[in-house]
Amino acid sequence: MPEPLGRRRWAIAEGYIPTWSNGPEPEMLSQETACLLNTGERDAHVEITVFFPDREPGGPYRVTVPARRTRHQRFNDLREPKPIPHGTNFAISIVSDEPIVVQHTRLDSRQAENALLSTIAFSE
Amino acid sequence: MPEPLGRRRWAIAEGYIPTWSNGPEPEMLSQETACLLNTGERDAHVEITVFFPDREPGGPYRVTVPARRTRHQRFNDLREPKPIPHGTNFAISIVSDEPIVVQHTRLDSRQAENALLSTIAFSE
Amino acid sequence: MPEPLGRRRWAIAEGYIPTWSNGPEPEMLSQETACLLNTGERDAHVEITVFFPDREPGGPYRVTVPARRTRHQRFNDLREPKPIPHGTNFAISIVSDEPIVVQHTRLDSRQAENALLSTIAFSE
Amino acid sequence: MPEPLGRRRWAIAEGYIPTWSNGPEPEMLSQETACLLNTGERDAHVEITVFFPDREPGGPYRVTVPARRTRHQRFNDLREPKPIPHGTNFAISIVSDEPIVVQHTRLDSRQAENALLSTIAFSE
Repeated sequence: MPEPLGRRRWAIAEGYIPTWSNGPEPEMLSQETACLLNTGERDAHVEITVFFPDREPGGPYRVTVPARRTRHQRFNDLREPKPIPHGTNFAISIVSDEPIVVQHTRLDSRQAENALLSTIAFSE
Repeated sequence: MPEPLGRRRWAIAEGYIPTWSNGPEPEMLSQETACLLNTGERDAHVEITVFFPDREPGGPYRVTVPARRTRHQRFNDLREPKPIPHGTNFAISIVSDEPIVVQHTRLDSRQAENALLSTIAFSE
Repeated sequence: MPEPLGRRRWAIAEGYIPTWSNGPEPEMLSQETACLLNTGERDAHVEITVFFPDREPGGPYRVTVPARRTRHQRFNDLREPKPIPHGTNFAISIVSDEPIVVQHTRLDSRQAENALLSTIAFSE
Repeated sequence: MPEPLGRRRWAIAEGYIPTWSNGPEPEMLSQETACLLNTGERDAHVEITVFFPDREPGGPYRVTVPARRTRHQRFNDLREPKPIPHGTNFAISIVSDEPIVVQHTRLDSRQAENALLSTIAFSE
């Protein structure tokens, strides 16, 4: 592949981490995920900012997607500077220094690894 | 982030508010939602127009997405000039004076906060 | 709205009409739908072509989306020149003489009007 | 249709083949699928590369989408050079020598032919 696929600026407008889930963790924990794909030859350094309805944005959370790798990033696992609060609506922006592709997926806590929704995120 | 993410004209072609739902309101009410994200430094003033199969369009409904905030707008909560009728197909256009990102999500009335579908809306 | 929203050429790569469904028709019939939105001031004349894995394309099916209206077109209801066969994979292209927006939605036959999936179609 | 619809470079950032499923195979096998549509007059030769979180990419898997045909390609059926491992996250890139349209769909193993999610893939 001559050039890496993707873009550098992405957004997901819908996010929500429930305050509860069914079944044993972590398999059965409800899983809101941003799937990041880096097809290029350089590591992608990614900044995730979280937007809320009624308070200042949180983050940035910093993650790396290594060259020629994918990273399925659960929002639950974004810990620094502080975890995303559960039980509130949010949205996120994703800015990368290398082209990446972002897909938003939510898994069902009722049955491991079955997704309830998925959409390619907005990019520009 | 140097420039706000997004575009000013959006559309969702699929909409439907059921005439019934399971469980206590509002948590268990079926939730057709337009998630709006404004990453910019200026409030976004948004006009929503509702299109039907067999009558003149309704609205515009006016909502504001404050600077650096997200708004998860349930269609059920659009009241002025008058509520969207239940039990009929519709579609919507969304026009904003600032760049925004729009994601269409429907939540399941059978289990709070589990989404049945989600897609980034059409933009241009 | 100064100009109509949308594009003239669209595609949905995933289609399937089951050979059976649960519950009384038509409400409970599994519903594969193309939701078409015409925000403009002129009627949109739309040609739908159906592609299969192993035979020549079918159609074109011709439908009209009136000015300032939406049409939620079930694939099941495309009858002329002949119905789409059930129980086979297909894909569709949609060509319109006016700008439209297309969203692909499948409803669940197990519970009326709950969608299982939805995505804005591909356009160019 | 004067020109074929679509683009030549696509990506799906979310992939997962469960290690188990309910019901008899192949109908009830969980089905992660890339639906490929070729509306043109020439066969499309497609290369699929699979990216992982923690190892080198696999493939390329080579498939053909004949002219004026659709191919609903299950990831489970990609066998050469070797099958995609089950129970691990992955992502894929799709490069075609002719314009195609790609839609990502996952079917539910609990009920044949009901999809849990679908999204038009990312293209450029």
